[in-house]
Amino acid sequence: MPISRFYKLYLSPNRKYVKILKNLLGFVPGNLSLYRMAFRHKSVAQNIKKGVKNSNERLEFLGDAVLGSVIAEVLFKLYPFEDEGFLTELRSKIVSRVNLNALGKKLGFDKLIEYDNRMLNSSRQGSLLGDAFEALIGAVYLDKGYDFTKNFLINHIIKPHIDIHKLEQTETNFKSKLIEWCQRHGRDIIFELVTNQDGESTKLFTVQANIDGEVMGSGKEFSKKNAEKLAAEKACEALGI
Amino acid sequence: MPISRFYKLYLSPNRKYVKILKNLLGFVPGNLSLYRMAFRHKSVAQNIKKGVKNSNERLEFLGDAVLGSVIAEVLFKLYPFEDEGFLTELRSKIVSRVNLNALGKKLGFDKLIEYDNRMLNSSRQGSLLGDAFEALIGAVYLDKGYDFTKNFLINHIIKPHIDIHKLEQTETNFKSKLIEWCQRHGRDIIFELVTNQDGESTKLFTVQANIDGEVMGSGKEFSKKNAEKLAAEKACEALGI
Repeated sequence: MPISRFYKLYLSPNRKYVKILKNLLGFVPGNLSLYRMAFRHKSVAQNIKKGVKNSNERLEFLGDAVLGSVIAEVLFKLYPFEDEGFLTELRSKIVSRVNLNALGKKLGFDKLIEYDNRMLNSSRQGSLLGDAFEALIGAVYLDKGYDFTKNFLINHIIKPHIDIHKLEQTETNFKSKLIEWCQRHGRDIIFELVTNQDGESTKLFTVQANIDGEVMGSGKEFSKKNAEKLAAEKACEALGI
Repeated sequence: MPISRFYKLYLSPNRKYVKILKNLLGFVPGNLSLYRMAFRHKSVAQNIKKGVKNSNERLEFLGDAVLGSVIAEVLFKLYPFEDEGFLTELRSKIVSRVNLNALGKKLGFDKLIEYDNRMLNSSRQGSLLGDAFEALIGAVYLDKGYDFTKNFLINHIIKPHIDIHKLEQTETNFKSKLIEWCQRHGRDIIFELVTNQDGESTKLFTVQANIDGEVMGSGKEFSKKNAEKLAAEKACEALGI
């Protein structure tokens, strides 16, 4: 065991935190302050300059990008005969907030994240976990580089915790998602077929997702069903659901 | 000069293509078939299996992700005191279709891309360049790895061709962008203030961007101006402009 590693694990004043991270990540972290920042929500962060806080949000931006890139390569190689539409959709399922929150919970991040719960409503608390997961990837990347982060993600996260083939089967059905959301929130939804403009192909269908009288999404496709799907997807996006 | 490099540049039957790529990229490529694929539009691609073609679209998916990750790190380090909102916005300006198309043109990709122009209308032809740029990044990544690609992007693309500080200053004005586009395409646009629903705050304004009678985007904000901005942004997104 190299001396620096021995020092970190057994002698340093931070040895307890180092051990927690080692158990969590499977490796001895280098720059501890990066990892502390990854688990620090903005509700407990301090200003470091002007309006910028030492919270995990910048690391989350970086980690989100690195994660997207690693997952892109994993899927590119895992599915050599699928097109980019398939790859894009599968990736967005893997990195969805719901999935990353569940992953953060499974990994025990709830014990590591520092936050002030007076400043959060309960619906926001769940996504702390996914945010911290992305921030952690940013920290690992800055600490250890891309190839290390990629191997860490593949061997410690994806293989043991993510069932890609199962996610592949689950279809993201935006229409039923939207309808359920409207029912839960007591809002009226109709999908309205809109007359096409002069000069447009008669084969095109335009459908608007109309919620409480307001158009929240619109889709134009060669089948009514696909136009509805697209309108629903856009409405989900606009509503943040 | 190693023998393999000498062979590639002076003896191989592909030496002409290798030299073109070397001039373009500044390095001698390894796996030529990746680069050929990066410049092959689907209009001239062949089916390799089921519905999958040997076009550049899968590489574009991968390259888009790698590019996003490299730009994220560059901005993270270049702006240590800006928040993630600033970083996200600046990155989206850098990797915008408009910017990548211009970059592809500047790098002379129009001479390298293979496509069938009978299968494209003129408005689509421009974005071939940006698509090929992303696909090329995917090819470089698979051929040479992440750190090489990152250095290539920083030293050969970003430093000589992208003025980040200038992009930082340009505000993306979606409203004027949308109005200009409508004028150019002979379409009518109005921004319509919509009555709020019962129970909604009277301080909220809902504005719809209505193009030729069809709602293409909707925004709800605490000022009429911001609601218009948001509606315009959503319409730009829906129209792919």
